[in-house]
Amino acid sequence: MSTTLNFSNLSHLVLPRSIALVGASERPQSVGGRTLDNLITHSSFEGRLHLVNPVRPEIHGRACVRSVSEIDGELDLALIAVKADNVVSVLQECADKRVKFAMVLTSGFSETGDEGRQAEAQMLAIARASGMRIYGPNCPGLNNINARLGMTFSPAYQFDQKPGPIGLATQGGGMGRTIIQAMERGIGTGLWFSAGNEVDLEVSDFIHYMATADDIKVIVTTLEGVRNGPRFLEACQHAARNGKPVVAMKIGKSEYGVKAAQSHTAAISGSAEVNSAVFRELGVIEVDEVSELIDTAALLARGKPTGKEKVAVFCYSGGTAALAADKVGTAGLKLAEFEEATLAKLRAQLPDYAAISNPVDTTAVVLTDAEIGYASLKAVVDDPEVGAVIYPIPFDYGEVTTTAAKSAARVQKETNKPVVMVWMSDKLGQGYPTLVNNGMVPVRSVGSAVDAVRRYVEYGAWKARHDAGWIPGALSAVEGSGPGALPQGLKSIREHEAKAFLNTWNIRVPRSRFVTDREAAARAFDEIGAASVAMKIVSPTITHKSDVGGVRLGIQSAQAAMEAHDHILAAVRQAAPTHALDGVLVEEMLTGPFVEVVIGVHRDPVFGHVCTVGLGGISIELFKDVSRRLLPLTPERARDMLEETRCVRLLKGFRGKPAMDLDALVDTLVAISDMVMRNPQIDEIEINPLAVMPQGAGVMALDAVLNISLEA
Amino acid sequence: MSTTLNFSNLSHLVLPRSIALVGASERPQSVGGRTLDNLITHSSFEGRLHLVNPVRPEIHGRACVRSVSEIDGELDLALIAVKADNVVSVLQECADKRVKFAMVLTSGFSETGDEGRQAEAQMLAIARASGMRIYGPNCPGLNNINARLGMTFSPAYQFDQKPGPIGLATQGGGMGRTIIQAMERGIGTGLWFSAGNEVDLEVSDFIHYMATADDIKVIVTTLEGVRNGPRFLEACQHAARNGKPVVAMKIGKSEYGVKAAQSHTAAISGSAEVNSAVFRELGVIEVDEVSELIDTAALLARGKPTGKEKVAVFCYSGGTAALAADKVGTAGLKLAEFEEATLAKLRAQLPDYAAISNPVDTTAVVLTDAEIGYASLKAVVDDPEVGAVIYPIPFDYGEVTTTAAKSAARVQKETNKPVVMVWMSDKLGQGYPTLVNNGMVPVRSVGSAVDAVRRYVEYGAWKARHDAGWIPGALSAVEGSGPGALPQGLKSIREHEAKAFLNTWNIRVPRSRFVTDREAAARAFDEIGAASVAMKIVSPTITHKSDVGGVRLGIQSAQAAMEAHDHILAAVRQAAPTHALDGVLVEEMLTGPFVEVVIGVHRDPVFGHVCTVGLGGISIELFKDVSRRLLPLTPERARDMLEETRCVRLLKGFRGKPAMDLDALVDTLVAISDMVMRNPQIDEIEINPLAVMPQGAGVMALDAVLNISLEA
Repeated sequence: MSTTLNFSNLSHLVLPRSIALVGASERPQSVGGRTLDNLITHSSFEGRLHLVNPVRPEIHGRACVRSVSEIDGELDLALIAVKADNVVSVLQECADKRVKFAMVLTSGFSETGDEGRQAEAQMLAIARASGMRIYGPNCPGLNNINARLGMTFSPAYQFDQKPGPIGLATQGGGMGRTIIQAMERGIGTGLWFSAGNEVDLEVSDFIHYMATADDIKVIVTTLEGVRNGPRFLEACQHAARNGKPVVAMKIGKSEYGVKAAQSHTAAISGSAEVNSAVFRELGVIEVDEVSELIDTAALLARGKPTGKEKVAVFCYSGGTAALAADKVGTAGLKLAEFEEATLAKLRAQLPDYAAISNPVDTTAVVLTDAEIGYASLKAVVDDPEVGAVIYPIPFDYGEVTTTAAKSAARVQKETNKPVVMVWMSDKLGQGYPTLVNNGMVPVRSVGSAVDAVRRYVEYGAWKARHDAGWIPGALSAVEGSGPGALPQGLKSIREHEAKAFLNTWNIRVPRSRFVTDREAAARAFDEIGAASVAMKIVSPTITHKSDVGGVRLGIQSAQAAMEAHDHILAAVRQAAPTHALDGVLVEEMLTGPFVEVVIGVHRDPVFGHVCTVGLGGISIELFKDVSRRLLPLTPERARDMLEETRCVRLLKGFRGKPAMDLDALVDTLVAISDMVMRNPQIDEIEINPLAVMPQGAGVMALDAVLNISLEA
Repeated sequence: MSTTLNFSNLSHLVLPRSIALVGASERPQSVGGRTLDNLITHSSFEGRLHLVNPVRPEIHGRACVRSVSEIDGELDLALIAVKADNVVSVLQECADKRVKFAMVLTSGFSETGDEGRQAEAQMLAIARASGMRIYGPNCPGLNNINARLGMTFSPAYQFDQKPGPIGLATQGGGMGRTIIQAMERGIGTGLWFSAGNEVDLEVSDFIHYMATADDIKVIVTTLEGVRNGPRFLEACQHAARNGKPVVAMKIGKSEYGVKAAQSHTAAISGSAEVNSAVFRELGVIEVDEVSELIDTAALLARGKPTGKEKVAVFCYSGGTAALAADKVGTAGLKLAEFEEATLAKLRAQLPDYAAISNPVDTTAVVLTDAEIGYASLKAVVDDPEVGAVIYPIPFDYGEVTTTAAKSAARVQKETNKPVVMVWMSDKLGQGYPTLVNNGMVPVRSVGSAVDAVRRYVEYGAWKARHDAGWIPGALSAVEGSGPGALPQGLKSIREHEAKAFLNTWNIRVPRSRFVTDREAAARAFDEIGAASVAMKIVSPTITHKSDVGGVRLGIQSAQAAMEAHDHILAAVRQAAPTHALDGVLVEEMLTGPFVEVVIGVHRDPVFGHVCTVGLGGISIELFKDVSRRLLPLTPERARDMLEETRCVRLLKGFRGKPAMDLDALVDTLVAISDMVMRNPQIDEIEINPLAVMPQGAGVMALDAVLNISLEA
């Protein structure tokens, strides 16, 4: 696994000037034999190809050398197809020869057990020591279809060769082949990295490479887990800077998926929620299906969204037009409102009983009259409010459906706005190949088309914000202790200590006293001077205090404070007899309206510190109305994350309620972020609830939990 | 539109013994000409066929009569393809001739405007007066593919003829054809009703017919709106009683969809939420896509679910197996845990590096060895915990993929458990047709397969509850006034009057006094005798009292009550100066813990009174955590609906909180239901919040709104 943010230039891996096939074989079904066949029969490789075989002087009439060391001149790539036992020594030879890249096709390593893991550690050591980069092992290889170069043993390579603008990086090979075969819909995948056990080079390296590869417009990846968070972040940011969308499918959203993914590639998985939050932040377009990868990538290869696109629905079946319009609405997209000139053109073309406002129901006339089919769709595409057209074809009627398809293809050639064709029928007829052959990549259901358009528009909106100065996630903790460093040597932090620490970061907490006897409780009540106080048990080990009777609210006199003190101790001793009790915290209670939110930061094993904010109290567990961001937060990022929650409506003043102090909440989020960045030993901090009071009145942390790493 | 619950026997519509084609024509492109061609060339009709044409003595060598009245003998069906202007008079002739069914293919009626609507009213009057049932107008006809009888002018009929177990009823024809063309996936639609403007016979009639049709196993429908709620309920219940699943897609879930659907067929639409709730209650399986209709119906045609099915995933690609397992988990389905015997069989068949626990990753061995492919899948299918298998094929590898497909088909022939094949690639190869030809109806994405299996299992669970004595929704209001009838002549109901009415139904409300001056407020405080009271403005026109300053809480003395009285009046007069103010309500306030829920009943235009229950207060608008049922409620149904909410966890005692009085909440729901059934003039009642107190302490209606119909 890579531990540095450095990315090698992979140009000579993707298109080597010279290749050595180590383990070249005459046996057609062997890995070495198939790879050789792909290289010499099904590729157009113009560089030098060396065959290495320790015992055969020639294969298929081509001379062999006995080892890599015997090859004259520089070697960009060693393709290694020898037995597992010999791989490490061959790699060492390659390193000694100063080979730039080694691709290990052989399997039988970490996927089989400890011995394999040890061999992989040796491979990585060789890579680190020599600078040679290793691809694999246990992988099908690399398909550079745009250069017609198959560095792979796959027998399918020869059949699936359609150049195109999609660049693919997968963990595991199966679904990569599914994507390649989308060529049958008219979209080519020009480059496919599938690096198996990813001992050195990994998905992040390939994304980084494709970010500046001229032949690739859209990057697609399937992931079972991100191995190294910061490298993934950097690779995706590199793609964003270069205007390359990244479309990703992550496996492991349910318990079953996590289990299955781990047994397959043993990739470390962050939580699905954190992954999704990071993807959203990076502009990585997350999808849930292989078909969605294709639909979305193909659409992004056809146009550059601005985020402001409104949609037109164009169809010759009224019910289908209604279905498509319905899905546009459900997806949160907007139907364009045609200008009068568009309506006039449609009125002139279509029969009286057609529906000319959006969604357009042309009636069957477009099936029989190619010119009307062209002119009416052209009118829609040319409407200034239209950014994309969804055109479902619900059934195949043979030749007439082809007429409609041809008209659509003709319009598409004259516009940059994508016309998204939906071929709904299982009968492919002649219209379907017409769309395929014109590069229109028909989608197979109305919902899929709408989803793809939604993702297209959302990416455009993200890209616009990104280009206007979006601030990337942190790649390393900010140095320095600043105001409010945690005391050294602190191990267990109690509520009032956590609150005191928050206070050093200017986060307001209730006036309070920590007391250890009933008389002190009475004195505390008087000293605090509030109309009403809360009293809570203090214990290093009890987290959910109210569950054990450890909380009393609304205490309004010194006498009541003494009684509450005794009641709390008695209740907790009974409910939690094994826990150590330090004393009782007496705190002022808030009067007046406030909204309870929760702010938390925890350390994700892949991506580091992640902040969560949302509606607090019981609702967080029932409704999970939260938003997440990597640290550090800026005021802008904090505001953004609040906008993603539903409860922001409460904070902005809901149904006549006062608007709450959103500015103070934003300041608090930033303060928490700064606090954790300056004290990276913090594993977890949670303020729940943070009371957000009306505008101008600020916030107050009513409860807080703080855990620090014992290693820090 | 039908107004009775009576359903005619449609056998002689679906398979008439005698047909008159009125408007038979020699012109091949006319409606009459195409229909004639379909009847004589592409059908196997064995009954009597009469051609009616007022001017031609014969067509294609067949004798014509001038009018229906000239035909000897009984007529089951008149197929009407005359001009719109002549349709009504032809229908009258048919009625006079005592024709059983008339199918009007002609268009140009309500879809074109008022004149057409008037003609349809005349048609309906003829149907009602004569007992002849009318199908159409403005429809493509009826396809009885199982009997090879095309009573349709569609030129596609001749091409799309695969008999099968699916029965289809659509509003609008386009998407019906999409479903018919699923024959290309190996599933036939044997019967297709598409009754256009539904002047008399409607979707409900067709569902009712198919409920007992021997050749139909699964009923599929696409709806833009249910025209008559009670008839739809009865038809679906008839289907349920006869063990026929109904799969439905309803258009009109978003604003755009409602608008588009209404312009298309002008069907009345209930709200999407109510529709979905009714579907769920009736066991109607709701889907969102045409492809989902097919996937789900095809699966239900292959097996009878019990609701207890656990799933196995079987695949030769590890990543794809992980994806499928992931989706099984996300969908809330359970992966089966194989028994030891199954694991032993798999171990014996598969290589060491295969994954033999569920999900099974066979590795590529099943592509090359048909026997291993068969035996390993057979072992999985035979495991006692497995109820369904999902088998994704991620890519086409030519012949070897066919080997895997054949093994799967062989296993499917030996078991009743469905093996759901997923063909993920756009390359259809030879494996895909193998699956199609073996009736395995391949699904096109992993997510679609999992969704279909989820719906299959859910339907099984619903069916089990249904067969164990599920109580149907009300079809008519219960008669009689009983205890607690609303006073006659009441128009505007104020909060305290609504509460008094609730109290007559044994729903507890706060002790209270309605006062009209400040001294009375003070007296009210003393008379109520609570530690704390709430005071609220009473006005016939102000609904959201707190929004205008009309609510004061926590008043703890008679003096404070006087002051609050004056403050409330002043605040409301300022905020809502145009509203009439009747006085102030003084109410006891609850102390101690409670959960706020909302109970509402409103009148849906299609289905009648619908009850809604869920988390109350502000949360209802933010999170919409509610459940809905048609009236009347029984305790069982009330409990069911509570179980559908997330907030039921709060009521059952959440995170150490006390369990609340669920029984009292159930009693209250039933009481509200009884109240509305006995007072059907109630348009709307809402209790928000209803305080649900700890177990044994009951509930209390803290606020209530009641609106009655002015017409009642």
